[in-house]
Amino acid sequence: MKILGIDPGLDRTGWAVLEQSGPGAAAQVLESGLIHTPKDLALEKRLSAIYDALALVIDANRPQAAAIEEVFFSKRADTQANTTHARGVILLACEKKSLSICAYNPREIKKTVSGNGGADKAQMQKIVQLILGLKEIPQPDDVADAMAAALCHLRLAPMRLAFEKARGINRHIEAKARVK
Amino acid sequence: MKILGIDPGLDRTGWAVLEQSGPGAAAQVLESGLIHTPKDLALEKRLSAIYDALALVIDANRPQAAAIEEVFFSKRADTQANTTHARGVILLACEKKSLSICAYNPREIKKTVSGNGGADKAQMQKIVQLILGLKEIPQPDDVADAMAAALCHLRLAPMRLAFEKARGINRHIEAKARVK
Repeated sequence: MKILGIDPGLDRTGWAVLEQSGPGAAAQVLESGLIHTPKDLALEKRLSAIYDALALVIDANRPQAAAIEEVFFSKRADTQANTTHARGVILLACEKKSLSICAYNPREIKKTVSGNGGADKAQMQKIVQLILGLKEIPQPDDVADAMAAALCHLRLAPMRLAFEKARGINRHIEAKARVK
Repeated sequence: MKILGIDPGLDRTGWAVLEQSGPGAAAQVLESGLIHTPKDLALEKRLSAIYDALALVIDANRPQAAAIEEVFFSKRADTQANTTHARGVILLACEKKSLSICAYNPREIKKTVSGNGGADKAQMQKIVQLILGLKEIPQPDDVADAMAAALCHLRLAPMRLAFEKARGINRHIEAKARVK
């Protein structure tokens, strides 16, 4: 199973594709990277660049699912707005490429991966390095966060899917927008 | 000149295409409508539906520019996040269709169109009706707000363009996202 982990941001979106041969097997990093957009571009051009770059990543790696960090709500209002705009086009890119999408909040990711919902960035980078057997600390932290989101998904997805099945949630309901 | 006015929202995105034959001429509504997405759909499916619906609106009407309301920051945090996600894909749809895009904050729109930055929804609906010579009050208020955004753009765009030219701002700088 291939999972695309994403840490959304307008300046920097971290991404990582992890592969796991089966439940409980060690996950491996297939590819990871950072989508950076310059601050002097108009917002719509930055969003378009993120959308296009992520579409290329998905086409090149063909993951089945995406694990995307939720926006952390205590950041500055303008940063939060930037991140949420970016997250909109990131969700769209994943949806247009038919990935199943799971959102996880940052605390949930930290707790699931490290056992500590309040772990700091350096701790998360070190733990992600150890779990994935990387030779070096994953850099920058946006990329480590994307790896952590994918790891979180690999641990929680089986339970989440069972839960949703039990509740009868149909995630494949078709979108119908009315234009009137 | 054809302008697409947009009032972004996840539940309801109002849109209106206004045409003005020349500077100072009366603007006319060519078409307007509401993009509605049901609450029981996953966020990514709602965003995809908004993106597709707006692309259809742009293809059908071929506006040159889009005037898009900024997100009002005193709303509830979850509503604000929903609106900002939607606004991300709305900006992307306009950018992918090569529209020039101007953002206006709600207060700026109200002040420019009605003379009162604190005008309420009912006042704005009535004023938009009068300015555009509509037989009926534009309904719902999301559509009236989209018309107001387009009207605001028709009044401010000539000044804004002159200002940007004077400052040497190049709005056509190409987006370059680095994937590394």
